[in-house]
Amino acid sequence: FSTGAPITATLFPGDGIGPEIAESVKQIFTAAQIPIDWEEHFVGKEVDPRTQSFLTWESLESVRRNKVGLKGPMATPIGKGHRSLNLTLRKELNLYANVRPCFSLPGYKTRYDDVDLVTIRENTEGEYSGLEHQVVRGVVESIKIITRQASLRVAEHAFQYAKAHGRKRVSAIHKANIMQKTDGLFLKCCREVAEKYPEIVYEEVVIDNCCMMLVKNPALFDVLVMPNLYGDIISDLCAGLIGGLGLTPSCNIGEGGIALAEAVHGSAPDIAGKNMANPTALLLSAVTMLRHLELNDKADQVQNAVLKTIAEGKYRTIDLGGKSSTTDFTNAICDNLGIGS
Amino acid sequence: FSTGAPITATLFPGDGIGPEIAESVKQIFTAAQIPIDWEEHFVGKEVDPRTQSFLTWESLESVRRNKVGLKGPMATPIGKGHRSLNLTLRKELNLYANVRPCFSLPGYKTRYDDVDLVTIRENTEGEYSGLEHQVVRGVVESIKIITRQASLRVAEHAFQYAKAHGRKRVSAIHKANIMQKTDGLFLKCCREVAEKYPEIVYEEVVIDNCCMMLVKNPALFDVLVMPNLYGDIISDLCAGLIGGLGLTPSCNIGEGGIALAEAVHGSAPDIAGKNMANPTALLLSAVTMLRHLELNDKADQVQNAVLKTIAEGKYRTIDLGGKSSTTDFTNAICDNLGIGS
Ligand SMILES: CC(C)[C@H](C(=O)O)[C@@H](O)C(=O)O
Ligand SMILES: CC(C)[C@H](C(=O)O)[C@@H](O)C(=O)O
Repeated sequence: FSTGAPITATLFPGDGIGPEIAESVKQIFTAAQIPIDWEEHFVGKEVDPRTQSFLTWESLESVRRNKVGLKGPMATPIGKGHRSLNLTLRKELNLYANVRPCFSLPGYKTRYDDVDLVTIRENTEGEYSGLEHQVVRGVVESIKIITRQASLRVAEHAFQYAKAHGRKRVSAIHKANIMQKTDGLFLKCCREVAEKYPEIVYEEVVIDNCCMMLVKNPALFDVLVMPNLYGDIISDLCAGLIGGLGLTPSCNIGEGGIALAEAVHGSAPDIAGKNMANPTALLLSAVTMLRHLELNDKADQVQNAVLKTIAEGKYRTIDLGGKSSTTDFTNAICDNLGIGS
Repeated sequence: FSTGAPITATLFPGDGIGPEIAESVKQIFTAAQIPIDWEEHFVGKEVDPRTQSFLTWESLESVRRNKVGLKGPMATPIGKGHRSLNLTLRKELNLYANVRPCFSLPGYKTRYDDVDLVTIRENTEGEYSGLEHQVVRGVVESIKIITRQASLRVAEHAFQYAKAHGRKRVSAIHKANIMQKTDGLFLKCCREVAEKYPEIVYEEVVIDNCCMMLVKNPALFDVLVMPNLYGDIISDLCAGLIGGLGLTPSCNIGEGGIALAEAVHGSAPDIAGKNMANPTALLLSAVTMLRHLELNDKADQVQNAVLKTIAEGKYRTIDLGGKSSTTDFTNAICDNLGIGS
């Protein structure tokens, strides 16, 4: 049915509810006749010395080779001497931009019905440098690093994204009134890039004010670009506006054109294996992967089926106030794909 | 009418709308027969070498002497070679805790009607250390400092506040999963203090998750204590939930028992002198000052009159959707003080 050869994509089902929601994505992709072959990789049982984490070297090689992947939740096993799985992926694959579209889901009621924005987070440096030490007893410091290279790269991605998706405004979020050098450099880079995109409005918003504006009137925002920690905070705040991390897609952009989409919610071990999990975040993340592959018709088809199923309300998982199992919800989405009708 | 001698308090009317809203506070305090003598100090016209800012040394001495004060908005004049007025006050008076009660105002509709929490922000260190430099061209760093002394001090204040105000839970907000040393030390200090208050529930919430929870269900929170930048962000987010900085009180606690209450909104130069400003934030800040002085009956009297006036809705300033001047709104509050009725 596909025009070209199928595309191979890496799939990390992840832990906890991960395998169930990954199953849901695979079923829906098959039903929608999407030309993707999944190459599945699981989190290892022991630390791989080449990655210093439970992620296997082979799984990283798979993403490097395929350049495109989808990732479920991964709980970092407790213990010393290894790195967090999420942070390992970011570092090893140089996933420099985390892109999270956030929009109100029609028919799913929260206090907000007018959210439609995208947060773009620098994902490699800032407060996540890992540079910390004790100066003297009782005095510790953490070092935030901002570089011109990483700031230009994420700013460039934000403007390219805005242009490609017909968005009109990019807001750079900062605290340069206090961190004049670091956030100042970030803003300087954003301004440089903004000049190349005169058709897109560029503005700068201080993070505290941004959070206040977001909760008062999120419709004021379109694309937001920011350093690592502000992105961590604001992307979760925005997810809260539309119902939580179970509903928001995420995609990481890495060096060499890698796109690793991921559900950013937890692995919910309490409901794992009970056919109760909500696959929406992973499905909508898979949609961002399709858009990255420029399979826009397929992306629209899956997204519309997910949104329609939630809006109809007959089949909703328990976290959405419904009674459906993961399987029933998934079948309902398949029925809404509009295949054969 | 008062039982003892009047108390002298420093008053910084501030810039822009500051003098008008300070006038409103003075009028209402007089009408309520509150035994306070105001010692007024204005922002200087030039940099005072002893403060390195436009704040005069005399004004700082006044707060140090009186130990209690009220501050309107201050716009830091543009230019080099001097410090921001707000930061100068924090540094010079060692204002180590910024306390912001945040509650839904009855009758003033926002998307939330169930907010009743208090943010307590460490106000002297963290990301505000001012330590920043360029490492090499294109690479800059900012240093976040956390000390045991400042963390214990603000944690102690949070638990004391919770106890004194009958609050049941203190949540420490952090990102210790990433900044293990700095935020880790902050949490360690909070835990130490928490042990002394077994009647108060203590919990730890990661800042990104906290922001998501706040926008989904702010009623989950009671007292929140956190390092400087998180406090800056979260206090503004919370203000947004109930309508903005024009409605939220703030009080700074400093060394030696100083309490400097302040309206944290801007000086709104565009409407200055037009009798349009909303004095609510300064009034409610003045109420926190009264509570600090244990003039609780007077505090209740003023707070109730302000809330009643807003709830009745007949006299509201323009920012609250009404048509009243500052004077009319102030007179309405005086009428609602219940004096002589
Ligand atoms: C789990 C944590 C390390 C991570 C982060 O802080 O980046 C998470 O909050 C996220 O947003 O992916
Ligand atoms: C104006 C700015 C320096 C200040 C801060 O960041 O502390 C303000 O946002 C505040 O909260 O008082």
